[in-house]
Amino acid sequence: MSFKAPVKDMLFALQHLARLEEINRIPGFEDVNLETAQAVLQECARLNEEVIAPLNWEGDKNPSWWQDGQVFTTPGFKEAFRQYAEGGWQGLQHPAEFGGQGLPKVIGAMCTEILNAANLSFALCPLLTDGAIEALLTAGSDAQKATYIPPMIEGRWTGTMNLTEPQAGSDLSLVRARAEPQPDGTYRIFGTKIFITYGEHDMADNIVHLVLARVPGAPQGVKGISLFIVPKFLVNPDGTLGARNDVHCVSIEHKLGIKASPTCVLQYGDHGGAVGYLVGEENRGLEYMFIMMNAARYAVGLQGIALSERAYQKAVQYARERIQSRPVDGSVAGAAPIIHHPDVRRMLMTMRALTEGCRAMAAVAAAAYDAAHHHPDAAVRRQNQAFYEFMVPLVKGYSTEISHEVTSLGVQVHGGMGFIEETGAAQHYRDAKILTIYEGTTAIQANDLVGRKTARDGGAVALAVAAQVAATEQALAESGSEAAQAVRVRLQAARAAYEEVVRFIAAQAKADPVAAYAGSVPYLMLAGNLMAGWQMARALLAAEQELAAGRDADFMRAKIATARFYAEHILPRALAQRDAIVHGAGSLKAMALEAF
Amino acid sequence: MSFKAPVKDMLFALQHLARLEEINRIPGFEDVNLETAQAVLQECARLNEEVIAPLNWEGDKNPSWWQDGQVFTTPGFKEAFRQYAEGGWQGLQHPAEFGGQGLPKVIGAMCTEILNAANLSFALCPLLTDGAIEALLTAGSDAQKATYIPPMIEGRWTGTMNLTEPQAGSDLSLVRARAEPQPDGTYRIFGTKIFITYGEHDMADNIVHLVLARVPGAPQGVKGISLFIVPKFLVNPDGTLGARNDVHCVSIEHKLGIKASPTCVLQYGDHGGAVGYLVGEENRGLEYMFIMMNAARYAVGLQGIALSERAYQKAVQYARERIQSRPVDGSVAGAAPIIHHPDVRRMLMTMRALTEGCRAMAAVAAAAYDAAHHHPDAAVRRQNQAFYEFMVPLVKGYSTEISHEVTSLGVQVHGGMGFIEETGAAQHYRDAKILTIYEGTTAIQANDLVGRKTARDGGAVALAVAAQVAATEQALAESGSEAAQAVRVRLQAARAAYEEVVRFIAAQAKADPVAAYAGSVPYLMLAGNLMAGWQMARALLAAEQELAAGRDADFMRAKIATARFYAEHILPRALAQRDAIVHGAGSLKAMALEAF
Repeated sequence: MSFKAPVKDMLFALQHLARLEEINRIPGFEDVNLETAQAVLQECARLNEEVIAPLNWEGDKNPSWWQDGQVFTTPGFKEAFRQYAEGGWQGLQHPAEFGGQGLPKVIGAMCTEILNAANLSFALCPLLTDGAIEALLTAGSDAQKATYIPPMIEGRWTGTMNLTEPQAGSDLSLVRARAEPQPDGTYRIFGTKIFITYGEHDMADNIVHLVLARVPGAPQGVKGISLFIVPKFLVNPDGTLGARNDVHCVSIEHKLGIKASPTCVLQYGDHGGAVGYLVGEENRGLEYMFIMMNAARYAVGLQGIALSERAYQKAVQYARERIQSRPVDGSVAGAAPIIHHPDVRRMLMTMRALTEGCRAMAAVAAAAYDAAHHHPDAAVRRQNQAFYEFMVPLVKGYSTEISHEVTSLGVQVHGGMGFIEETGAAQHYRDAKILTIYEGTTAIQANDLVGRKTARDGGAVALAVAAQVAATEQALAESGSEAAQAVRVRLQAARAAYEEVVRFIAAQAKADPVAAYAGSVPYLMLAGNLMAGWQMARALLAAEQELAAGRDADFMRAKIATARFYAEHILPRALAQRDAIVHGAGSLKAMALEAF
Repeated sequence: MSFKAPVKDMLFALQHLARLEEINRIPGFEDVNLETAQAVLQECARLNEEVIAPLNWEGDKNPSWWQDGQVFTTPGFKEAFRQYAEGGWQGLQHPAEFGGQGLPKVIGAMCTEILNAANLSFALCPLLTDGAIEALLTAGSDAQKATYIPPMIEGRWTGTMNLTEPQAGSDLSLVRARAEPQPDGTYRIFGTKIFITYGEHDMADNIVHLVLARVPGAPQGVKGISLFIVPKFLVNPDGTLGARNDVHCVSIEHKLGIKASPTCVLQYGDHGGAVGYLVGEENRGLEYMFIMMNAARYAVGLQGIALSERAYQKAVQYARERIQSRPVDGSVAGAAPIIHHPDVRRMLMTMRALTEGCRAMAAVAAAAYDAAHHHPDAAVRRQNQAFYEFMVPLVKGYSTEISHEVTSLGVQVHGGMGFIEETGAAQHYRDAKILTIYEGTTAIQANDLVGRKTARDGGAVALAVAAQVAATEQALAESGSEAAQAVRVRLQAARAAYEEVVRFIAAQAKADPVAAYAGSVPYLMLAGNLMAGWQMARALLAAEQELAAGRDADFMRAKIATARFYAEHILPRALAQRDAIVHGAGSLKAMALEAF
């Protein structure tokens, strides 16, 4: 069950799709080039392949456990986290002034994918810490930044995100946790938070909880929620740890997957109130939390790609080893490795094409983020910001839904052995199920796509992206190769379906919101499919050029075949989705709620 | 987590789709009418809802366990199995001369669905026993029938199916277990069999293993495999139990799902040889085993429908109770039960439409089985046999693949709670994963569909079915209702896609087998989709008539909405599948095996 980080495919995406050389020209990223990227990814691969990946199945077998308020992680996790922190990986994307490396997101994202492919349960701890750092960087005071960020970047402390309560999941307007102001300017926090990932554990000295709560007299709904820092241990002025704060883990969940990652119920204020420090201004908590959440949503998309990659590698390995039946074309005389059977190849190609497509889409989105945050030209920043914001629900929603399909195929390739837990294929299938749920379900992503990202500007950004797709179709037409023509036909059909849907959604969002939102998830899937397929088409064009230049022929030929497979097997789904969206609301509305 | 058997929908399918009154006219089925069916289904529902369903989650939490060669089932299973047997349920479809009830498959199948929805792990024991009875009825000697069938029908003994060995899964030509003939006419059996469902347990006094093995000098491959009865305890001439046979359970598997069902490794002949009795003739074992397997394949299709139904009911229940967010159309002022949200309704409707569609397809197939086996007219028998054989891979392959989608949506509707094992939604998702694997993976079903069911007759049966679909389109056109027109358009498009694919597959199966078999699973999914959608279209027509006659308006309106939803949301998938099949082989072949 060895794992090999897909460094080569990542470098291809960086060079040919995410256009790393353009990021390199942005002031501050002068050192960011293909060589840097390669060195970072290879070093990242080494740590993850050798240290973190081998703990993945161990964590599933021996999950973290709770005893008397303490949580103990899987044996080996603590030491691995130490190595992760010492390697400087927690600070990869964070500013140098707080001890980080300041690398662009486009490289950081690939390291995140590698870490998650190695061990999703483990990766959640650094991922949540990244989110806490982001939130404090944006909304924290200078003193808060100085106190909390460096120890998190050093991996001595970790961070969490406390939103959910039993009655408040997707709907944060229902948050009830309360924060009582104290004469010294601090607050006392009371309430119960659930589903808190790494809310308690033994891998770090302190845990920085970022907690949503209401101050007395706050407005109803989401506009009355404030954000607080509640450290597990209070921090003395010199940075050393003081008293234990009044936040306690009262239980952890028994879950379908990501079993090594403790999912905690945290009780605040049962012994007089947990000391909390307001972040930014009162009642603006949700706005700050969204900073954290948007970074986390993109990262969850990467988790989907990561699990897909891991499942794909495992399936290929098994398909090469398992000998069963003669190939239908008689290419092997007796029983052959099952990779010779057409349907096994179809399954592997589907897994591969979806994984590479989602990775390419995520890479391009990350590059837009970097340009949006660092490019000197404000117009370029704005344009990239709009593109990135449009892509976030697709990277999150599509890549995670796809990870269900890919990890399920991964089990299927293993046949009966796939159903036996010790084989390890089933773990990826179980782990993947959380990805379409946490950090906003697919429906929540789709609401975002329909409401904020499509209807609000009348579909302008969505259609501008379609115009870029059309430009790629033109380039495919000019290529002249058979593969490029085959891809062009499918890309064009999918783009036309997408444009029809964008216009439908933009028109209906106000006129007939049930119709628009009934199509929201199919629209997300259609858009994600098109975006990934578009990037695969671009990949095909780049691979044809590389091939013509005599570079890396085997890799380039595989990329061309994979891109064509994507176009022929995956892109046509857009046609079915278009029909369901544009024609499908009537039957949904015709069903009485009582009749279900 | 209460379960309610969908008796009403089953009776609708029996009356309007499977045309129970035609079966009623077959000699021997004079008592088989809607009243009988209702009485049987209601009684079946009672036992399963009250006794067997409550053990489902218990079995997941406390799976069967192995100790010193013995297997102990989940507490409660033994008593429930006693009640099941005493109720006469094991003999429902079996001949009266051996103590059965002789009911047609079309009613028996619905009881099987109910049992599996109640408790899939439990249901596997009677299901395998049914298969053993079938095989002995067809190929056993009179003495063997008299000895083994009545105790199995009484539920005192159970049956198993021993095919798989570590090196021989889908490829039975690799079976190595050997059978040495003895002077007394018996055989001694040696070898290891794996994945033997209920190969050892404590619910019955004896276990009748049906075992594939080779006699000395047998031809290589599948034509050298014989079938043997190997009872756990030898049977005295008076039917009492004698010596313990040399077959032992050396371990059971740790699985992703169906945890209460023991999956055994059986060791034959470690202490001198297990006594075995040849069934039928030597070297014809696979042929006999296929009798068992075909019945089992159809039944696994029912398991898919069963899990889908259970997951649907659970999701609806949660969606009515969970309060979160305001509906987009403002139909409720504050936070509302999530069933008000369009995407939740879309998910529930998808689950419902797929479940009802697969149930309707299975019912129609079962009716064909009954006509094929019992109709007095040979031509009618032949026609129905061809239809039934065409449908078996679709009922098995499509309904089980669909159960992945439906149980996954079931988890999704539950949001974060779905990922917590105690909620119970995840169990159905885990259980469902085996259904596309055992009794022949989806690819094996698809091979059968392409090879024996389509290419062999040049697509004649497949296209004859399409003509029947076209007749339903005509009836829809004559209905004149808006819903019927909407369904007709989608049905016609899907049927056209299907016909194109049938011609492609029939033409390519010899000319370019890799191309034909690369499209095999998509073809199975397309054909299953069309068949289920066709039955839903027929259901719509029947419901319109009932509605016009003033019968059961709420139910009929829901049926019409569901049928239209199926047509608009599910049938269009056929277009994407057609493209992948007809145009998709090139990219698959372009990928070098080493490049994966």
